[in-house]
Amino acid sequence: MDTISELQDFVKNGYKHYIPHISIDSAIFGYHDHQLKILLSNYKALDGYCLPGGYIKRTETLDEAANRIVMERTGLKDLYLQQYKSFGDPDRIKWSEIDFENFLKKIGVEPIKDSWLMDQTISVGYYALTDFSLVTPQGDFMSDFCAWFNINEIPPLLFDHDQMVKDALHTLRIQLYYYPIAEKLLPQKFTLTEIHSVYETLLGKKLDIRNFPKKLVFLGLIKKLSEKRNIGPHRAPFLYKFDIKTYNKALEIGTTLS
Amino acid sequence: MDTISELQDFVKNGYKHYIPHISIDSAIFGYHDHQLKILLSNYKALDGYCLPGGYIKRTETLDEAANRIVMERTGLKDLYLQQYKSFGDPDRIKWSEIDFENFLKKIGVEPIKDSWLMDQTISVGYYALTDFSLVTPQGDFMSDFCAWFNINEIPPLLFDHDQMVKDALHTLRIQLYYYPIAEKLLPQKFTLTEIHSVYETLLGKKLDIRNFPKKLVFLGLIKKLSEKRNIGPHRAPFLYKFDIKTYNKALEIGTTLS
Repeated sequence: MDTISELQDFVKNGYKHYIPHISIDSAIFGYHDHQLKILLSNYKALDGYCLPGGYIKRTETLDEAANRIVMERTGLKDLYLQQYKSFGDPDRIKWSEIDFENFLKKIGVEPIKDSWLMDQTISVGYYALTDFSLVTPQGDFMSDFCAWFNINEIPPLLFDHDQMVKDALHTLRIQLYYYPIAEKLLPQKFTLTEIHSVYETLLGKKLDIRNFPKKLVFLGLIKKLSEKRNIGPHRAPFLYKFDIKTYNKALEIGTTLS
Repeated sequence: MDTISELQDFVKNGYKHYIPHISIDSAIFGYHDHQLKILLSNYKALDGYCLPGGYIKRTETLDEAANRIVMERTGLKDLYLQQYKSFGDPDRIKWSEIDFENFLKKIGVEPIKDSWLMDQTISVGYYALTDFSLVTPQGDFMSDFCAWFNINEIPPLLFDHDQMVKDALHTLRIQLYYYPIAEKLLPQKFTLTEIHSVYETLLGKKLDIRNFPKKLVFLGLIKKLSEKRNIGPHRAPFLYKFDIKTYNKALEIGTTLS
């Protein structure tokens, strides 16, 4: 939606093309070089931050809608993207505190009484993971800008988005152990030091450098190669790779532990 | 909803009290004595089976709605209940193939043109786990009856409910390793044989009797007690219990493996 007349039509007739009462919000995490960030949108109507979100076209699946919404903000297709939870507390958006009509006027759109956009809405939460150095964040008509924030420096978010981020991060951290999520952030063959850094950064805590890789090997999630990498005099650690077969089996039959 | 006039009002005005375009469907699993079952509802309008479901009151959280819906069918409060995924493929319910007006006439309700019940709907999937011997299944106005089916003898289900069951079972099986789900199905102190049976039944496969408990102990999910249970001459296996602290830590910080 680029023009005012498109926006006007969206506010007035959007429910014909999008499913009302349901939105998608995306916690887009970015990793690079020991840093974990999250993409936040500046929400003009309220002068605060929230997760990038959008509505579901009546012709789209939820995954298609989430991919489109994430693409609109990151410019990237086919990110690692995972639905994690739907949020539906009745008071999750306090419309009585939001001057939506005034916001519409400000951006040049004629306010509509009882717009479909202001009715009770349940949001389907997705999380995504990418290398943030690859992304140029994009705003949209609701936001002034969209930017990466360090995971430990997130400002208080609008609506129930603090809870959404908390749950997204929790799911990412649990799923690290049965989806090959970290695979996208590592070279195909990596050292234990490298995978240790990615896991420490994503989990946000120190991991025992000796025990942690042992567990991954014990569970069959990574395997040792006979190849080494020369990184200095007398320093040539063994290389490892993900055992995608184990992951696929885990996903199919339920767990890596049985 | 017990009377025809209540039903009539629900079909006509239900969207004022319930959020339109969103439903909840529940995969209610039942375990007892080496058997895993699922609760299915006979859907009158289509003469087929589906998961028990319902709508969300505008004053309810999703969890509250799911608890109410599950209670209406099982008579049980506070079951182990977990949201696992939302389903929103545009063609998940083929309304053109459903003679909803005729169904309403059959049950004595005057059909409404373009009822809110027949618009595109996204469903939030919950799964529950209980001991099926405790449950007396209840039908409702949409179903003739509701009954337990063996997990390996599920008839083809209506809508996208085959996929819902598949995903619910998959989530249950993965979560067995980081939520103390099986705790509700075992005595507080149990033998390795007992926990082995519950896991084998829920996972639907044979587990190595020696390796499986070792992994649970290794991960700190169960711990050995000094107490034994006498079950026969020369047979007194050690008792174990869940280490709820490890589970809580896992839920809080992300995983049991770090």
